[in-house]
Amino acid sequence: MLEPRLDTEELRRRLSAVVGPEFVSASDADRYAARDMWPRALLRRRAGRFEGLPDLVAWPADGAQAAAVVRIATQAGWPVVPFGAGSGVCGGALPERGGLVLDLKRLDRILELDSRDHLLQVECGAVGENLERELNRRGYTLGHFPSSIYCSTVGGWIAARSAGQCSSRYGKIEDMVRAVEYLDAAGERRSTAPLEPGLDGFSLLPLLVGSEGALCVLLSASLVVRPLPPARAFAAFRFADLAAGVTAMRSCLRAGLRPAVLRLYDEFDTLIAKTGPEADGEASSWLRDLLGRAAKPLGRLGEASLSVLLGRPALLNRMTTLLPGGCLLVAVCEGSQGETRETARALNAACVTAGGEELGEGPARHWWKNRYAVSYKQSPLFAAGAFVDTMEVATTWERVLPLYRAVRERLWRRCFVMAHFSHAYREGCSIYFTLAAAAGSDERAIEAYDRMWREAQEAVLAASATVSHHHGIGRLKAPFLARQLGTGGALHRALKRAFDPDGRMNPGTLFADGAR
Amino acid sequence: MLEPRLDTEELRRRLSAVVGPEFVSASDADRYAARDMWPRALLRRRAGRFEGLPDLVAWPADGAQAAAVVRIATQAGWPVVPFGAGSGVCGGALPERGGLVLDLKRLDRILELDSRDHLLQVECGAVGENLERELNRRGYTLGHFPSSIYCSTVGGWIAARSAGQCSSRYGKIEDMVRAVEYLDAAGERRSTAPLEPGLDGFSLLPLLVGSEGALCVLLSASLVVRPLPPARAFAAFRFADLAAGVTAMRSCLRAGLRPAVLRLYDEFDTLIAKTGPEADGEASSWLRDLLGRAAKPLGRLGEASLSVLLGRPALLNRMTTLLPGGCLLVAVCEGSQGETRETARALNAACVTAGGEELGEGPARHWWKNRYAVSYKQSPLFAAGAFVDTMEVATTWERVLPLYRAVRERLWRRCFVMAHFSHAYREGCSIYFTLAAAAGSDERAIEAYDRMWREAQEAVLAASATVSHHHGIGRLKAPFLARQLGTGGALHRALKRAFDPDGRMNPGTLFADGAR
Repeated sequence: MLEPRLDTEELRRRLSAVVGPEFVSASDADRYAARDMWPRALLRRRAGRFEGLPDLVAWPADGAQAAAVVRIATQAGWPVVPFGAGSGVCGGALPERGGLVLDLKRLDRILELDSRDHLLQVECGAVGENLERELNRRGYTLGHFPSSIYCSTVGGWIAARSAGQCSSRYGKIEDMVRAVEYLDAAGERRSTAPLEPGLDGFSLLPLLVGSEGALCVLLSASLVVRPLPPARAFAAFRFADLAAGVTAMRSCLRAGLRPAVLRLYDEFDTLIAKTGPEADGEASSWLRDLLGRAAKPLGRLGEASLSVLLGRPALLNRMTTLLPGGCLLVAVCEGSQGETRETARALNAACVTAGGEELGEGPARHWWKNRYAVSYKQSPLFAAGAFVDTMEVATTWERVLPLYRAVRERLWRRCFVMAHFSHAYREGCSIYFTLAAAAGSDERAIEAYDRMWREAQEAVLAASATVSHHHGIGRLKAPFLARQLGTGGALHRALKRAFDPDGRMNPGTLFADGAR
Repeated sequence: MLEPRLDTEELRRRLSAVVGPEFVSASDADRYAARDMWPRALLRRRAGRFEGLPDLVAWPADGAQAAAVVRIATQAGWPVVPFGAGSGVCGGALPERGGLVLDLKRLDRILELDSRDHLLQVECGAVGENLERELNRRGYTLGHFPSSIYCSTVGGWIAARSAGQCSSRYGKIEDMVRAVEYLDAAGERRSTAPLEPGLDGFSLLPLLVGSEGALCVLLSASLVVRPLPPARAFAAFRFADLAAGVTAMRSCLRAGLRPAVLRLYDEFDTLIAKTGPEADGEASSWLRDLLGRAAKPLGRLGEASLSVLLGRPALLNRMTTLLPGGCLLVAVCEGSQGETRETARALNAACVTAGGEELGEGPARHWWKNRYAVSYKQSPLFAAGAFVDTMEVATTWERVLPLYRAVRERLWRRCFVMAHFSHAYREGCSIYFTLAAAAGSDERAIEAYDRMWREAQEAVLAASATVSHHHGIGRLKAPFLARQLGTGGALHRALKRAFDPDGRMNPGTLFADGAR
């Protein structure tokens, strides 16, 4: 379907005429860098396999150049993979079939900040941290704080339905986006009505949010901003077990409380949270921190011994059930002085009622201080055939503990499993699993990785949970999403054909239903 | 595209075999009744024109029968128009091209009420008032109170993105629906993932919500319910003008307050609100109440003289600018004792700060008592070539007063215009216009009606507002939605083709871009 396609040199020449020769590249360095952080791809590269490289990378300066690039590339029969900052962990931005990577990082301007209606117009290549810092300077916040904020963009957030650490108060990115300007598969500039979902008639917006580059290229977005909260309060509690902690979280959300942060750690994750920096979001960076820090509580075992332990996940999993520490809940409330005080008070009462032991502000302040502490170095342990990944899934309150147990039991002998419960809503919450294992070689690690994910997602589907909460679908979860959609998948694929009849937009990802 | 289609008698025989002969009808009575309340269609009928009649009406007993009916009808080349209780006012449920009306009222069962996760599974033919009464009996509320609640269904609400009177607290129906079971154009039963948008991966749900029968037939829905609020508080204020009242509403919502009801009436609507029952939502019933009650404050003019006045809208509009009463704001707060008290206190402070004069509970209690007081009799005045309709549009706070003025000015000589501001959100609110005029004859009334709507919606589009807020699109607004979507309209139509390649599902409504 993608053939015949125009020769690379010729396309490069045409694109150079649009963006300038210095902004289109076929160099190995640029081609290798144009990928997300999907652990499977990392393992594959460690195994010496270098699939998933684009033939060209282009950096348009603005929407007009981006439109011309897409038009030229798709007409030339090339697949186009929109690219932000590459923090994805699901293979959603990975040019598996070659083609053109459209890097949007030069589209990073704040177009307008409407201080009357609290609406921000920003280009989609803007990196989160830069945007938030500028908003703060002007007295506002977006309220969106993924731990990838230093290496993720507005467009990536919208494309993958990102959730920030304060989602319980501010919602996920889809709750903040009010309109988008985008390119269709023909490179035509389009935009949704410049209005708010709550105020909207029929809109394409909910369809484009979460479309992971497979329906359109996001150029700019209208987002709701809030004045910087004048007050913030921290609290932490220890619960005897997860069930008590989940009860506390649920009663807070059910009572209509909107804490900014509410995170409950299982026994092992509690040790990590208490002994070192957080590291959500970017799987490949976890293992060193995780095992390094785990080493302390686990009796000063060295990393080597832990690598051995990872070869015996059942043993490691059993050990975690013997941990004494209980489960840590950290909470952060913010807003007006009065609201913050009232929320903190009610939250404290709910936690104590559920059996929580007050730990003061310390653990929550510690978490807050380290909330973006993600290491971007590849863990050397990856090279030894060990690997780590994270799985963020969600379901309703009644199903959330059964989901936790089902995933643990299913993976008991496959990999080491730890988790925390975050992104709480009135109806339920998400679980953020960390899965780590070791295999004899990188090739065997890839097999083990695929088996681990297949079994994990089967457990998730059986527990009536979502296959994803905020990392997106990508190549990793597309087959499982197709199973979750069931018969709806046919419409799902019809939708893709309607928007992208020739299958040029980020092929093989969101709307792919088969195996990768 | 719809021809050749199977002969009516033959289709009737086939459908009888599915639903039973008593549940499929070609009788005039049933065919005349199978329509919504679009005022234009009423005028047309008064003018003796009876287009828009279905050839058959079927009442399936359950989802399986409904699936068989749709499969048989669409395969036979028949258009299918899903039908609830017929309270629509935009021609969204009007079989303009004949065909089959699929009346879903027999699908009215509560399938499950999950008291742990506060989720309701209900069939889409359930009438709002019956459902809410049963929920109340069990200690819950849906929090969705359109004034059409006695004559509208769950399916109609979801299909048209309905908003209830308490939307500022509970949101619109799209904020409550978590999953739907539906039939595609081939009559195949499908369902979205049984999960919540906040917890969801990519979902078709936001696409089916608001699809007005043009993509699918809604069979059942999963909706969030809440425990009945233990406390409720009423308040009312008089503002010197609309601007002061809008400032008060805006500051309440911006401060994060979630009153259940916040309604601001312009000078004339204030007189109506103070002197008699409300009558949102069902246009054809307004005129008598409106003019009858208007008669009092306007110096005891009789209906006859008012009909004459309606022939001179500019004069009538000028009179309203001379009214002394100022603008009434009614507010209702509900929730826990503490939250209700706190919200009422903060709301009072915001209103007084904005210049509001406290009027006590009276006007708000009066509104509450009469909030469903909609007359279902056709106003005799309709017969005299007079007509009335309502237009609910929305925009951001900064644009809402310019929108109000733009519509008034554009229609100044066309029709009498009054309005109230309701359904307030953090970003903006909707305006509910009532438009009334008289013409010499029903035929001329139709021309005047079309001209009025064309000019009204042009003013709305020019003011960057939505063409609809909660009445839906239907035949009435489809051409204006197409203009609002602009270039996005092409994707919009591609979407329709993807779901309904043969154009069987409620043709000529939501996705139609041309004139009716």
